[in-house]
Amino acid sequence: MTKTYDMTGRNRVRRLPDRGHYDTETIFPIIDQALICHVAFHTEEGPVVIPTLIARDGEQIFLHGATTSRLIQHMADGNPLSIAVTHIDGLVLARSIFHHSVNYRSAVLFGRGRLIEAEAKLEALRAFSEKLIPGRWQDARQPNAQELKATSVIAVDIESASAKIRSGPPGDDPEDLNLPVWAGILPLSPSAGSPIPAPELDPAHEVPPYVEEWIARRSNLDAG
Amino acid sequence: MTKTYDMTGRNRVRRLPDRGHYDTETIFPIIDQALICHVAFHTEEGPVVIPTLIARDGEQIFLHGATTSRLIQHMADGNPLSIAVTHIDGLVLARSIFHHSVNYRSAVLFGRGRLIEAEAKLEALRAFSEKLIPGRWQDARQPNAQELKATSVIAVDIESASAKIRSGPPGDDPEDLNLPVWAGILPLSPSAGSPIPAPELDPAHEVPPYVEEWIARRSNLDAG
Repeated sequence: MTKTYDMTGRNRVRRLPDRGHYDTETIFPIIDQALICHVAFHTEEGPVVIPTLIARDGEQIFLHGATTSRLIQHMADGNPLSIAVTHIDGLVLARSIFHHSVNYRSAVLFGRGRLIEAEAKLEALRAFSEKLIPGRWQDARQPNAQELKATSVIAVDIESASAKIRSGPPGDDPEDLNLPVWAGILPLSPSAGSPIPAPELDPAHEVPPYVEEWIARRSNLDAG
Repeated sequence: MTKTYDMTGRNRVRRLPDRGHYDTETIFPIIDQALICHVAFHTEEGPVVIPTLIARDGEQIFLHGATTSRLIQHMADGNPLSIAVTHIDGLVLARSIFHHSVNYRSAVLFGRGRLIEAEAKLEALRAFSEKLIPGRWQDARQPNAQELKATSVIAVDIESASAKIRSGPPGDDPEDLNLPVWAGILPLSPSAGSPIPAPELDPAHEVPPYVEEWIARRSNLDAG
């Protein structure tokens, strides 16, 4: 189901409003293609921003970390958060320095965290793992009670969000088009290299198909 | 000159302190390899995090944007900022779900912005441009008075900073090493594709050498 977030003082794209999007159909794929996000929170000493893994499940975001971590504790307390996901698709070289730009897809989300506890925690971890690398949960050893205790999962219901996207060629002023300056796009994209087996692994142990699929899929997407 | 930032409540790496670094020799290359950062600032409605281009010049960070943008205005007012730069180098697959991890290099900086004005502004823009794509400033049409007015440059003196790095193979528990589960690293790195000329460009216009160099260099580095 597509949904559009209300445009408010918090999520409104002020600069170049044509690049702003408020619908989940645009915002969710930007989140889903990312491995990591940057979470901002406020402390007594000022704002802090921290990178962390991200996984979306419907209209909620899962973040996780060590139960003892500052970010987890801050999020578990229900403090307001801002979460950004950004994909850089290329550098845009215009004839004029002024019109230089970047092709990107970014989403900025707003919400508050809450701790996922008890029965729901294992299921949330499974969902988190499956979003990041489908198939791994069944294959690897699943968390025991002690490991489960050491890990916290935070859900953030998306209260407000917007995406900002730039794509396409440089937008030079008409009077600059004949300048003898090369102009165009320098595409950037993440790529997944060949898997590096752990040192102790039996060399005959083949890379599982779901890992091969992950690599193939990641070769067209973005890491953050 | 190498310098080490004091470890304080603001920049101290709490979780896995072995991964923390406080020296400029470690922190500066992480910044320099990035095109973008995420800037967090506080508003009346809560924290906000925004992606933007970054360039370092000694112990100061340059950020830029439209003079009318909210982020620029907030930074120009000297409000406290936190700035993160993150490179994802790979996904780390352990035999246990618990020991799954990410190889990464991140830097989190703290400081306050100030507007670069008058004579210094053009020079700061030149430095910004040269950090992002050396050689472009001389080749492209440089900003006129009106364009210069529409663009603001913010300098942030780094008051405090730390880096956090994870590298190497999975760290499984000894009792898990013989589980029949593939383990290792799935390397991730950004890559620059072939340049896409602007539609109106003379097809005979060759890609300049400094752009070729940028592409070659970016094929081993990270976009953010």
